[in-house]
Amino acid sequence: MQDVKEFSPACPLPIEQYPQVLLAHGGGGRLMHQLIEQVFVGAFGNPLLNARHDGATFRLGGARVAFTTDSYVVRPLFFPGGDIGTLAVNGTVNDLAMCGAQPLYLSSAFILEEGMPVETLWRVVQSMKRAAAEAGVSLVTGDTKVVDRGKGDGIFINTAGVGIVEHGLDISPASVRGGDVILLSGDIGRHGIAIMAAREGLEFECAVESDCAPVADLVMRMLDEGIEVHCLRDLTRGGLTSALVEIAEAACVRVQLDEQAVSVREDVRGACEILGFDPFYLANEGRFVAFVAPRDAERALEIMRSHPTGEGASLAGRVAESGNPLVTLRSRIGTSRILDMFSGEQLPRIC
Amino acid sequence: MQDVKEFSPACPLPIEQYPQVLLAHGGGGRLMHQLIEQVFVGAFGNPLLNARHDGATFRLGGARVAFTTDSYVVRPLFFPGGDIGTLAVNGTVNDLAMCGAQPLYLSSAFILEEGMPVETLWRVVQSMKRAAAEAGVSLVTGDTKVVDRGKGDGIFINTAGVGIVEHGLDISPASVRGGDVILLSGDIGRHGIAIMAAREGLEFECAVESDCAPVADLVMRMLDEGIEVHCLRDLTRGGLTSALVEIAEAACVRVQLDEQAVSVREDVRGACEILGFDPFYLANEGRFVAFVAPRDAERALEIMRSHPTGEGASLAGRVAESGNPLVTLRSRIGTSRILDMFSGEQLPRIC
Repeated sequence: MQDVKEFSPACPLPIEQYPQVLLAHGGGGRLMHQLIEQVFVGAFGNPLLNARHDGATFRLGGARVAFTTDSYVVRPLFFPGGDIGTLAVNGTVNDLAMCGAQPLYLSSAFILEEGMPVETLWRVVQSMKRAAAEAGVSLVTGDTKVVDRGKGDGIFINTAGVGIVEHGLDISPASVRGGDVILLSGDIGRHGIAIMAAREGLEFECAVESDCAPVADLVMRMLDEGIEVHCLRDLTRGGLTSALVEIAEAACVRVQLDEQAVSVREDVRGACEILGFDPFYLANEGRFVAFVAPRDAERALEIMRSHPTGEGASLAGRVAESGNPLVTLRSRIGTSRILDMFSGEQLPRIC
Repeated sequence: MQDVKEFSPACPLPIEQYPQVLLAHGGGGRLMHQLIEQVFVGAFGNPLLNARHDGATFRLGGARVAFTTDSYVVRPLFFPGGDIGTLAVNGTVNDLAMCGAQPLYLSSAFILEEGMPVETLWRVVQSMKRAAAEAGVSLVTGDTKVVDRGKGDGIFINTAGVGIVEHGLDISPASVRGGDVILLSGDIGRHGIAIMAAREGLEFECAVESDCAPVADLVMRMLDEGIEVHCLRDLTRGGLTSALVEIAEAACVRVQLDEQAVSVREDVRGACEILGFDPFYLANEGRFVAFVAPRDAERALEIMRSHPTGEGASLAGRVAESGNPLVTLRSRIGTSRILDMFSGEQLPRIC
């Protein structure tokens, strides 16, 4: 047993400034990253956690194993294109895929609020079953807790996932190199708009459905074809911009994004204009970026475009040969500006 | 993609009887088991889940891997002998140990309520760090969600765990045999009383501290010494009785428990009398039962008693050579009665 004293440093967060947890601490932006870096990485710090990736990869016996977790608190529980159950399976499946792992096993832990209709739970569980079958994973262990009325919000789900890494690549920010191309798997912003519309009861001319989908099959295909993938990241909370800023900072590289190559559907763009959202920050649940060695760019794009979850793939940017950690956006009219994480909260409880 | 229709059966729970989720659905008793069996095992059912154990064990590459999860919603967050952070680490470490696995890696996912003091989170995280160091595990991946004020209860934590199984035994209810001895690792009921006292602001003559502790080191020692362990189960929600009833039902065996060999501390017994609790149903967080081949009973007890977390171990019961799935208690005065799970809720949010 270790000495207790060495473990009791003062909290490194600026507590005077933020004495209480804010919604923005879970929003995928700067405040969340401050919390993660200073509290969690600060306390638990170890080489695996320090990799700042969507999951941890380690050796067990002879196998290379990936391990990840996410809790899902989306509101409302059901939305166009999915529900909390679909999300809870696909989100964790995708985080494993982002480690370059074949997803195999999921846990599912439920925190239910007293008084929630059992029928609602049943619908969610059926969605999880369907999503697991579609993604080719098994739900093998679980837990159920019930909290008293008013101390939860219907249903929260945690899934953790275990997958196997069957290639020799190290897919993580540390592998990103100058010259890498950045491939974007499709149009962005649909999940955020679908949630927002469902939450506020908004009706747009065409209903926007969430892009929620498992992307592991596409990722496995790229790896099977020998594409030299350096890093992968799904574009969930904080959207495309936050994902790229995270990677630029973790890898200490400069990322140049090309606005023209980033597809946003007309209905999503319209909804964003009405609601005052920027699609570059909106959450997606079936989109990712791949940092790939430049010589494999064309072949990787072909593979992506031939797969249902990558049909709209584009070469959206590049890693500069040198420069400070930064993400710049080259606009349609040729100007360039810096993209940063937002510090507050655009849209809480998106996943 | 599979046909959606085949996945939409009607909910098998008696919804007319329980249209809403009750606190008892998370209480470790009969209602929780009905929910798990009919909804979760019913929907997700696969051989690993069907083993009805504290975690799943499977092969990955050449390795035998154990995988488990639990969410922690204990109220209050801090109690004599531990807090939600200690619990979140030890609970999952112990579930891995109950699979006969050496715990290695944990995930930690936080659901925070807007407005919670950051200082409280920091204290909990420090506890997790200490508990992880004590149990010899690393926290390698995580997640943070924030829910709006009034939609959570300060802090909920989920941990999932991955461990490695380095022996040839199949430690699960299916391995339990007639004649097995049942070893109990120590006195029971302390965690339940500690929580209850902290929650209600009760002060007993001597403060009862939770027994919260990691038991993996003791379990590994038993396995290293070649003890033929058939099944292990920690005595959390529902306590000793529910654990034994679960195993008796899953293994289809009759279990005979000896009241005289079950140690309950005087202060715990006194508190139970005042509060109207039965210590046989109270939660523990550092106690377990081991079903062991009879020829190894003496040696196993010696190993347990020589370890800090098993000092008070006893031979508490036996598996009958035949009989229906049932747990019977032989009292101090020689009479015998049947023990069953409670159907309602003795003490909600104990872990």
